[in-house]
Amino acid sequence: MIFDENPQFPKGFFCASTNCGLKKEAKDLSVFYADSICNAAGVFTKNQFPGAPIVIGRKILKKGNLQAIVANSKISNVGTGDRGIENAKKMSRFVADEFNINANEVIASSTGVVGVQLPIELLGKGINGISKELTTDPIVGVRGMMTTDTYPKALSISSNNYTLTIVAKGSGMIQPNMATMLVYIFTDADIKANKLKSMLKKAVDLSFNMLSVDTDTSTSDTCIIMANGKAGKVDENDFSKTLTKACIKMAKMLARDGEGATKLLTAHVDGAKNKREAILIAKSIINSPLIKTMAYGGDPNIGRILMAIGKCEECKIIPQKILVKINEAVVFKDNIKSDFDESNIRKSLESDEVNIYVDLNIGKSTATAFGCDLTEGYIKENAAYYSS
Amino acid sequence: MIFDENPQFPKGFFCASTNCGLKKEAKDLSVFYADSICNAAGVFTKNQFPGAPIVIGRKILKKGNLQAIVANSKISNVGTGDRGIENAKKMSRFVADEFNINANEVIASSTGVVGVQLPIELLGKGINGISKELTTDPIVGVRGMMTTDTYPKALSISSNNYTLTIVAKGSGMIQPNMATMLVYIFTDADIKANKLKSMLKKAVDLSFNMLSVDTDTSTSDTCIIMANGKAGKVDENDFSKTLTKACIKMAKMLARDGEGATKLLTAHVDGAKNKREAILIAKSIINSPLIKTMAYGGDPNIGRILMAIGKCEECKIIPQKILVKINEAVVFKDNIKSDFDESNIRKSLESDEVNIYVDLNIGKSTATAFGCDLTEGYIKENAAYYSS
Repeated sequence: MIFDENPQFPKGFFCASTNCGLKKEAKDLSVFYADSICNAAGVFTKNQFPGAPIVIGRKILKKGNLQAIVANSKISNVGTGDRGIENAKKMSRFVADEFNINANEVIASSTGVVGVQLPIELLGKGINGISKELTTDPIVGVRGMMTTDTYPKALSISSNNYTLTIVAKGSGMIQPNMATMLVYIFTDADIKANKLKSMLKKAVDLSFNMLSVDTDTSTSDTCIIMANGKAGKVDENDFSKTLTKACIKMAKMLARDGEGATKLLTAHVDGAKNKREAILIAKSIINSPLIKTMAYGGDPNIGRILMAIGKCEECKIIPQKILVKINEAVVFKDNIKSDFDESNIRKSLESDEVNIYVDLNIGKSTATAFGCDLTEGYIKENAAYYSS
Repeated sequence: MIFDENPQFPKGFFCASTNCGLKKEAKDLSVFYADSICNAAGVFTKNQFPGAPIVIGRKILKKGNLQAIVANSKISNVGTGDRGIENAKKMSRFVADEFNINANEVIASSTGVVGVQLPIELLGKGINGISKELTTDPIVGVRGMMTTDTYPKALSISSNNYTLTIVAKGSGMIQPNMATMLVYIFTDADIKANKLKSMLKKAVDLSFNMLSVDTDTSTSDTCIIMANGKAGKVDENDFSKTLTKACIKMAKMLARDGEGATKLLTAHVDGAKNKREAILIAKSIINSPLIKTMAYGGDPNIGRILMAIGKCEECKIIPQKILVKINEAVVFKDNIKSDFDESNIRKSLESDEVNIYVDLNIGKSTATAFGCDLTEGYIKENAAYYSS
C-alpha cells in the first residue's frame, strides 16, 4: 500500500465544482461523476434529525448502484420539511439530466446551516453545464463542499492492481457516527455492493466513528464508496485493509483540522474488558474538555486522565492495575503518579501530536480514538458562526 | 420558604478557615463543626477513580453520624495510593483531637490537583488551634475550600421552624454525579439519617446531578448533609421540598460560576417518553459545545439544538412533533424552522440567562438541566491550570 503524494482519482472518476450563488464567491457546489455505473455503499449519521438528503440517500443506496454524487455547502437542507425532501430529489434530477444518467443513481449531500430552504433554482443553474468542467483532480471537487475546513482534504492510496481515493470535508460538529463530515471514496476495484458495505462499515468503525472534534453529531454526515471495477477483481482482504488504513489516515486529517485545533490528540486503550468499554474510555479521553485544553496548554495533568477513565461509570476498571503514558512516558502506575521527568514530557507536548496510552490490564480489548485540542479558536469560530 | 439575604448557619453550627501553607497566601483549609453529634448522610462522585477522602468518607457515613467536616483545597488526595488513605484518616484524627470529638464522626474532603501527596504535617499544624477561631459566618468556611471559584457560595433558607444552609465550592470539572463540587448542607431540623439520605438523593438528582460545566466528572465530589435537631421535629414533606429548592438554587449558582462562564444555560425537556430520556436530552443540550458557544455568542442557531436532540440515538423522538423555544420564543415547529423575529431573540440572548425549551410531545416525562456558556475564559483557565 502506497499513499500518493498527489491525490488523484482512479481511472473513470471525475469531478467539478462551481459557485452557484449560495456563498458570495467561494465554490459551493460539487459534482463527482463516474463514466460508468458503479457498485456503491454508504453509511449515514445516526442523528435522529437527519437532513433531507440523508432520508433520500438511504433509499437510493438500497439498490447498491451509483454514478454520481452532488454536494453543496452553506445550506444543509435539515429541518426543512417536505420541501426539503423535494429539493434533495431535485438535486439528483438536475445532475441526472446534465449527465444523461439515472436520477436513482445520483446521491445528494448538503452541509451548512440548518432550517433554511435551498434556493433550488440556483443549484439547477450551477449544475447546468457542469459536465463540461470535469477534471481528474479530486481537490477541485472538495472545494465546493468545504465549510469551516481550513484546507481541502483528499488522499489516494494504491495497492496491487487498484487505487482508492478519498475526498472529505469536515472540521466541527464531529463525533462518533460521523458528524459534519462528508466523505466520498472512489476506487477502480471490482467489488460487489454488499461486500463494499461490510468493508466500509468495518473501516468507518475504526476511523470516522472513532473521531470526535466536539462530541456533537451532525445531521448530515455521509460516507459513500463507489467502485467502478475498471481494475478488475482484487484481493478483497487486501482491499479491506487498504480501505481501513486510508479511512484512518483521513480521520486523522479531519481531527487535525478540527475547528480551532492545533494538535492531533490520540487515545489508545489496551487491556479493556471488552471492545465496547475500550471504545467508551478512548472516547472519554479525547472528548474531555479538560484533556483537550491540557493538550493545548501542553501541561501533563495526570488527574484529568484518571478522571476521564474513571468517569466511564459503566466500565470495569481497577485503579491499582492501570498504567498511563503520555507520549511514551509512564505517568501513572501502581495507583500512584509516577516519578516522571516533567520537563521532558512538557517538551514532548509541544509537538503537534499528543498521544495518551492507557492499559487497563484487565482484558484483551483495545481501541484508538482521534480528536484534537480545544482552543480559543474553537470558541471564536462557533460563537460567531452565521446561523440563520 | 424564604431565602435569607445574608446566609448564616442554623443554631449550633460553626466554621473556621485558615492558610496552612498549601497555597501561598489564600485560605486552603476549612473546618465545619457542630456543637453536638448530628444525623448525617452523603452522596459521592461516581467516578471510579475516587480520591482517598471519598473511600474513607463512604465508610464514615455508614453509621449516619457526623460532628465535623474538614476540607482542604489545592491538593485533592487522588491517585495517592495507601499513603493517601492514611492522610485522609489523619485529617479526621487531627480535627477529632482538636475538638475532642470522635474521629469516626469527622469527614474529610480534599480538592485540587491529583497525584500529589498531602503535606500532612502542614494540615496538622493548620488544624491545631482552629477551634478557637470558630465563627457563625458560613462564608468564612467556604473560603478555605475554593479553587477556581470566582466567589464563595453559600445560601440559607428558612421554612416553618427550621433553617437550612448550604455552602459549596465548584466551578469546573462539573457534570452529573457532582464533579469538582464540595457541597455541605447544615440544618437544625430533627430528621433521622436514613430519611436524610433519601431526601438528599432526591434533591441531588434534581440539582447537582443535572448540572454540567464541561461534562467532566471529578474524582472528589462530595455532598453531605448534617442535621443537629435543635429545631425539633419538622414537616418532612416540607423539608424535602425546601432541600430540593435550595439545592437547585445552589446548582444554578455553581453553573453561573462555571469556569469562564458568562451565562446560565438551562434546558427544559417536556413530553419525553420517560424520565431517563428526558434527562439524556436535557443534558445533551447543555453539554453541547456548539450550543454553549452559541449561548456565548448570542446567536439563535436552531440547527445546533436539533442536532443535540437528535444525537441522543437511544431516545425516542419524532421530528414532526417537536417544539423548540429559545427564551420563550418558538423557533421550531411542524418539522420546520419557525418564522420568528430574529432580532428579538438576539436581544433576549444578550441577557445572562439562556433558556432552551424542548417539547418532544410523545410522553409525559420532564427534566431540567443546568449549564453555562463556553468561552475563551474556559480555555485560558484550563490550558494553564497548574497540574503537578
